Amino acid sequence: MTMDGYKGFLGLLVLALLFGFLSVIFTLIWVLHYREGLGWDGTALQFNWHLVLMVTGFVFIQGLAIIVYRLPWTWKCSKLLMKSIHAGLNAVAAILSIISLVAVFENRRARNLPNLYSLHSWVGLIAVILYVLQLVLGFCIFLLPWAPLSLRKIAMPIHVYSGLFLFGTVIATVLMGVTEKLLFLENNLYRSFPPEGIFANTLGLLILLFGALIFWIVTRPQWKRPTEPDSSILQSKGGAAEGMEVTIAVSLGSNMDKSDSELNNEVAARKRNFGLDEAGQRSTM
Amino acid sequence: MTMDGYKGFLGLLVLALLFGFLSVIFTLIWVLHYREGLGWDGTALQFNWHLVLMVTGFVFIQGLAIIVYRLPWTWKCSKLLMKSIHAGLNAVAAILSIISLVAVFENRRARNLPNLYSLHSWVGLIAVILYVLQLVLGFCIFLLPWAPLSLRKIAMPIHVYSGLFLFGTVIATVLMGVTEKLLFLENNLYRSFPPEGIFANTLGLLILLFGALIFWIVTRPQWKRPTEPDSSILQSKGGAAEGMEVTIAVSLGSNMDKSDSELNNEVAARKRNFGLDEAGQRSTM
Repeated sequence: MTMDGYKGFLGLLVLALLFGFLSVIFTLIWVLHYREGLGWDGTALQFNWHLVLMVTGFVFIQGLAIIVYRLPWTWKCSKLLMKSIHAGLNAVAAILSIISLVAVFENRRARNLPNLYSLHSWVGLIAVILYVLQLVLGFCIFLLPWAPLSLRKIAMPIHVYSGLFLFGTVIATVLMGVTEKLLFLENNLYRSFPPEGIFANTLGLLILLFGALIFWIVTRPQWKRPTEPDSSILQSKGGAAEGMEVTIAVSLGSNMDKSDSELNNEVAARKRNFGLDEAGQRSTM
Repeated sequence: MTMDGYKGFLGLLVLALLFGFLSVIFTLIWVLHYREGLGWDGTALQFNWHLVLMVTGFVFIQGLAIIVYRLPWTWKCSKLLMKSIHAGLNAVAAILSIISLVAVFENRRARNLPNLYSLHSWVGLIAVILYVLQLVLGFCIFLLPWAPLSLRKIAMPIHVYSGLFLFGTVIATVLMGVTEKLLFLENNLYRSFPPEGIFANTLGLLILLFGALIFWIVTRPQWKRPTEPDSSILQSKGGAAEGMEVTIAVSLGSNMDKSDSELNNEVAARKRNFGLDEAGQRSTM
């Protein structure tokens, strides 16, 4: 990454963190100032945890999990460590979103209200289920050291696509949730531009901007973590040239994903490494 | 593209067209069967055009415009023709979305209702404005033959990103719109699982699946239109080898977008072509 590229990355990262942080703060102000506050007693105070936990976990922490490989100062860390952080953040997001669902289901039961009638609830529940599935499959395929590399190669583009599509769907679901909450205001208050309406609309825009920045950061090829899983191993066996050949072959074929070339390098590194030190090889995954 | 890749592409394309088509049909059934029907008289009949035009133009036709370069049987057509079709479909989508906005504004004025208080309206209006801006900028930068290639090179990744982000935002806005419409049903009817609620929720899922398929199709590198703008010109001047060198250089640098390599080829083709036939060169853009 060039110095200019690094500055550009840092600027957008700070902006993304700012919008994400502001989204969480705005949600807290919404429930603490405009609404009833927080509690775990079946009342509206418990419902309000739904908002706080979804924006904190399912939007902000999920967004961080998506871009964690892009942080240049982590490129010296092992791939295994970064994968664990990626999986860990996603696990935290999944747990918070499940607690958030419990909050709303218990609130509905206490108030004897029906569940799962709205498009928000349909899409949101499907998103949580698919997110947990993505987490479990991601762990089995990319973190378990005995997962076949051929499987990783097939699964990688699907994993990346599903992750980004789910993140987008979660944001869409949150925007539907904000819409629902504001339309439930008494006497059609929403249409008379109340401060709460303007404030929560602004929260919606902040979440959308956070999503826009995460999508930009994660789709810039020049900000991708370099492909060599462990350059010292490659160099010690003259593997740098071999790695370049792989990249050229992929480029000329031009019908493979960029992530494939990374996996090809991983395959090459694993093969070379196997002869050297099996335990050491695993730490590069 | 291999035969297997072609079959996979066709299968997903047919599925995308099916979901897109069903979304339009479901919207028509919603307004004609469950609602008051269609008309242009300031009443709810005019408002209903908002739904039909947004789903038809801003979702379905925009989705088609996004994947038009990916259709393998168009790869023999000139880039200029495909750019014109891409721009034309987006222009139709923009016009339909603007008529759709007129329908809702006139309906609000006739009923003396306030405008632009909801998150749906904020995000939706911003999306229409940015979409028109994207269309105008896209025309000036990528279609006007005298636009500098250096500008095209800088603008291409931004154009692609903005287009996809706007498409996702439009889908999120439509889901908010469906939510609003159903929450406006009398006496909280939505929560008692009325047929209209289930039906419109299903419409929401269909639109989301259409979006999911468009995003998958457009982000598969193996289904990208081949990079040579006009292979006959390249071959006649021994340019195929030169084109390959450019691709290798880009790949080794690995801090440039894939679309850059396409533009590099376009630059090379234009340079070569300039000596041959200036008018002919323009037809390859």
